[in-house]
Amino acid sequence: MNTFRLLTLAGGLSIAAPGLAQQTAEKVDQAAIAKIKDEGMNRSKVMETAFYLTDVCGPRLAGSDGLKRAYDWTKTRLTQYGLTNASLEPWGEFGRGWDIEKSYVAMTAPYYHTMIGAPKAWTPSTSGSVKKQVAYVKAITEAELDRYKGQLRDKIVVLEVATPPKEGFEPDAKRYTDEELKKMADGTPAARPAATGTPATSEADRMATYRARLALRTKMTEMMMSEGAAAVLSTRGGSQGTFFTSNGAPYAPDAKPVLPEIEMSPEDQLRIIRLVEAGIPVEVEMETKTRFQTQDLKGYNVIAEIPGTDKKLKSEVVMLGGHLDSWHAATGATDNAAGCAVMMEAVRILKASGLKPRRTIRIALWSAEEQGLFGSRNYVKNHFADPATMKLLPEHEKLAAYFNLDNGGGKIRGIYQQSNEAVAPIFTAWLAPFTDLGATTVTPRNTGGTDHLSFDAVGLPGFQFIQDPLDYGTRTHHTNQDTYDRLIPEDLKQASVVVASFVYHAATRDQKLPRKPLPAATAKAQ
Amino acid sequence: MNTFRLLTLAGGLSIAAPGLAQQTAEKVDQAAIAKIKDEGMNRSKVMETAFYLTDVCGPRLAGSDGLKRAYDWTKTRLTQYGLTNASLEPWGEFGRGWDIEKSYVAMTAPYYHTMIGAPKAWTPSTSGSVKKQVAYVKAITEAELDRYKGQLRDKIVVLEVATPPKEGFEPDAKRYTDEELKKMADGTPAARPAATGTPATSEADRMATYRARLALRTKMTEMMMSEGAAAVLSTRGGSQGTFFTSNGAPYAPDAKPVLPEIEMSPEDQLRIIRLVEAGIPVEVEMETKTRFQTQDLKGYNVIAEIPGTDKKLKSEVVMLGGHLDSWHAATGATDNAAGCAVMMEAVRILKASGLKPRRTIRIALWSAEEQGLFGSRNYVKNHFADPATMKLLPEHEKLAAYFNLDNGGGKIRGIYQQSNEAVAPIFTAWLAPFTDLGATTVTPRNTGGTDHLSFDAVGLPGFQFIQDPLDYGTRTHHTNQDTYDRLIPEDLKQASVVVASFVYHAATRDQKLPRKPLPAATAKAQ
Repeated sequence: MNTFRLLTLAGGLSIAAPGLAQQTAEKVDQAAIAKIKDEGMNRSKVMETAFYLTDVCGPRLAGSDGLKRAYDWTKTRLTQYGLTNASLEPWGEFGRGWDIEKSYVAMTAPYYHTMIGAPKAWTPSTSGSVKKQVAYVKAITEAELDRYKGQLRDKIVVLEVATPPKEGFEPDAKRYTDEELKKMADGTPAARPAATGTPATSEADRMATYRARLALRTKMTEMMMSEGAAAVLSTRGGSQGTFFTSNGAPYAPDAKPVLPEIEMSPEDQLRIIRLVEAGIPVEVEMETKTRFQTQDLKGYNVIAEIPGTDKKLKSEVVMLGGHLDSWHAATGATDNAAGCAVMMEAVRILKASGLKPRRTIRIALWSAEEQGLFGSRNYVKNHFADPATMKLLPEHEKLAAYFNLDNGGGKIRGIYQQSNEAVAPIFTAWLAPFTDLGATTVTPRNTGGTDHLSFDAVGLPGFQFIQDPLDYGTRTHHTNQDTYDRLIPEDLKQASVVVASFVYHAATRDQKLPRKPLPAATAKAQ
Repeated sequence: MNTFRLLTLAGGLSIAAPGLAQQTAEKVDQAAIAKIKDEGMNRSKVMETAFYLTDVCGPRLAGSDGLKRAYDWTKTRLTQYGLTNASLEPWGEFGRGWDIEKSYVAMTAPYYHTMIGAPKAWTPSTSGSVKKQVAYVKAITEAELDRYKGQLRDKIVVLEVATPPKEGFEPDAKRYTDEELKKMADGTPAARPAATGTPATSEADRMATYRARLALRTKMTEMMMSEGAAAVLSTRGGSQGTFFTSNGAPYAPDAKPVLPEIEMSPEDQLRIIRLVEAGIPVEVEMETKTRFQTQDLKGYNVIAEIPGTDKKLKSEVVMLGGHLDSWHAATGATDNAAGCAVMMEAVRILKASGLKPRRTIRIALWSAEEQGLFGSRNYVKNHFADPATMKLLPEHEKLAAYFNLDNGGGKIRGIYQQSNEAVAPIFTAWLAPFTDLGATTVTPRNTGGTDHLSFDAVGLPGFQFIQDPLDYGTRTHHTNQDTYDRLIPEDLKQASVVVASFVYHAATRDQKLPRKPLPAATAKAQ
């Protein structure tokens, strides 16, 4: 899931229209559901798939070797499951690939301490192993930044820790309570969790702060480059050795150079800062070796199909997907090997249980979601419509629905209507057989942050499921601890059968899912 | 705090005798307490002390350079506080010092992944940087171990992960509830938390399992050495990048050689194990550089005094202390810089508030507690009595009380009577002024695990306070995350004033604290 999108889009809400919900009884195929549950709960392969995506393929940053391994493995595995037309479909130019070949960082004075960190994505290598004095730069305005002029040459620059580690009185992981689910069903707006120690602010304020920080960071980078600093240590937060990772430089082939930079465990960075502030010189040794790949700048999605069996309807398509790419400091288990493993398991279940969907079912494993939903956006643009012009391509009318999974490893508790009132009674009926598995809630709330938005943006019915949060927001999302260990098998099995059933029903009902009115073109008429 | 001791001694209980508790009204000096609270809450230095002990001195493994820095810094600082006779008092021979000069471990195939770990204490260096195939050894019997014969030459051996990472549904940190404190006060036996997924077992069973594992591990080490393995990766558990550290080899100067060994984050180790078990070859690169010190094999305690002011009583002594040594992968903030910082703060408060204790107050910062309470045991043997013979030295009758702090960074909620019924009314009276600060409970329960036991073992009144557990048991105790960040200033301030008051009152009441009957000598008569 892509943080920036979540920030900008999570606020939207539609108003529920419960009066409309009971007009026609939606058909539910109980026999099919029994087969799906039997296959998915008793002969699950979802953890095996998750193992291959995470441990075997490794980190899957857009353009990386790990993502290439995942492209190949998923394409092969989907073919082995009996899907057809499995392919790597290029969606356009992404940029440079980038992989880590070495990462080492330690404090070497006042005493030795090996530290926890990883190179920020797309940052260059250090010149071998470098051992330098540290300079601490703390600035939130340009004037403050200017004070460091002339002090950074040949230094390893340590930046401020904006988010201190947690004390641990709250559990990392939680499930939605009945009360929370009821509020979602009622359409009560979501309470936005206030950041620790800071008062609640408006969305506009938050975006303004974010942009100001980004702008200052750009200036800092320019200054550190021109001053001749050796490297940077920074952190975006975390706790107890868990740290968040992000983008350190543009992936564009013509991107401006930046310094080598390691994103750090906040505890390790704070120790350095406390020492420097007490006047105790700190020396750091670090070595990062990163490798850029410019042979193939294209991005790909992995696509495969279960052909429809109804002569009239098989040209129509039900899609399901999740993004295959991840951040680089862990193996992207909950973001989003979990979603991909569940989607792959859903199509495996459908093939293995011998069901005959009327429409064609197409799985898509997207890439470069983390950089801006690029895989799904370009797929939509290439196949359905460009939101800029809203000129519809012929496939636009053929898409019955798109289902996405990308909110961590938690089991499915329901689904977001995404402002589409007409789907409420349909989803309510489809969820009913899964009450015993905890999936109960259709919410009029919108949700953002991931690839269903690419479909929604051109008026196609794209949906994301409600998932138990577990430790996604606190511990795994974009961190160095997003590993296989965080996945809970029963949650992924449950999600697989719910998705399989939704996809099957969408592929089998008489009509495609109802659509919202087409949005206006986002580009101004020329 | 020393785990092994806790395991063997935490079960003991005495029965409360509340009828005795009200015989004489214990005097409480409210004016002194007001001064202590004012100094300790409004002009605290406890976090500054904690900073120097942790960040500045660094890890303080017995015999290490970090412990030497802490010896010198505490001796100097206690003198600056106005204490007299500050000295490093040798207690006997400890063994070799050991420091880490480099620690690096990464998976280099099937892809690169930098891993989280630290050399096990007292293990030797690797021969520079070594890059080897991994062999996974999983054995709980000697027969199982034998199956690996002939397979370990030149391999990095990965051992089993006995304790899987937590899911995170429970908070790391907690405080005692009123109900839990009431049960302590009532003398209800402590519920032993069952290890995750295993049924409750008896103390004897646990010790038998522990000894069997230790014996097998010794055989493993012999086999790995004789087979010519290159190094070992092991883990004692942890979660999300936090790992536990321990002793990898004897510190005795004539200890048998062992292999280089890194204690790992369980997530990193489990990834390797899953890959190997799936038949995927794993290569690991590692470099550890450790340094042994054999110039000075002695152990020291840091001692300093506030002389008593009453002509008759000043030859009597009230002691307070905690252990200065720590494990090596972090800075031992909660185990036990916190306890030392509080004890140093307590004597600072007493000096600064100008109070005139009648007895002499002596602070002791112990060493090699983690290896078996060696600093305090030998101090007791040198000054008071050897528990083997129970021949009392002259100082034995002069010790009024010993107070210890070593259960993490949590505030004081009360005190353990340590089977000494007669102290209950005294401690109850002394705690009363701290009800507003959450210190309320005198429990007949015993507690073990740390240096008060050395005094208790020769019939001297030695006590440990009840402290809020916070994240001591889950996240910091003996881990790589036991850092300054985990300390909560308000907790340490509170503890400092409670200790200062207890020490002041023990140094000022007419009688020394009541004693239990002398224990029998532990050695058989010759």
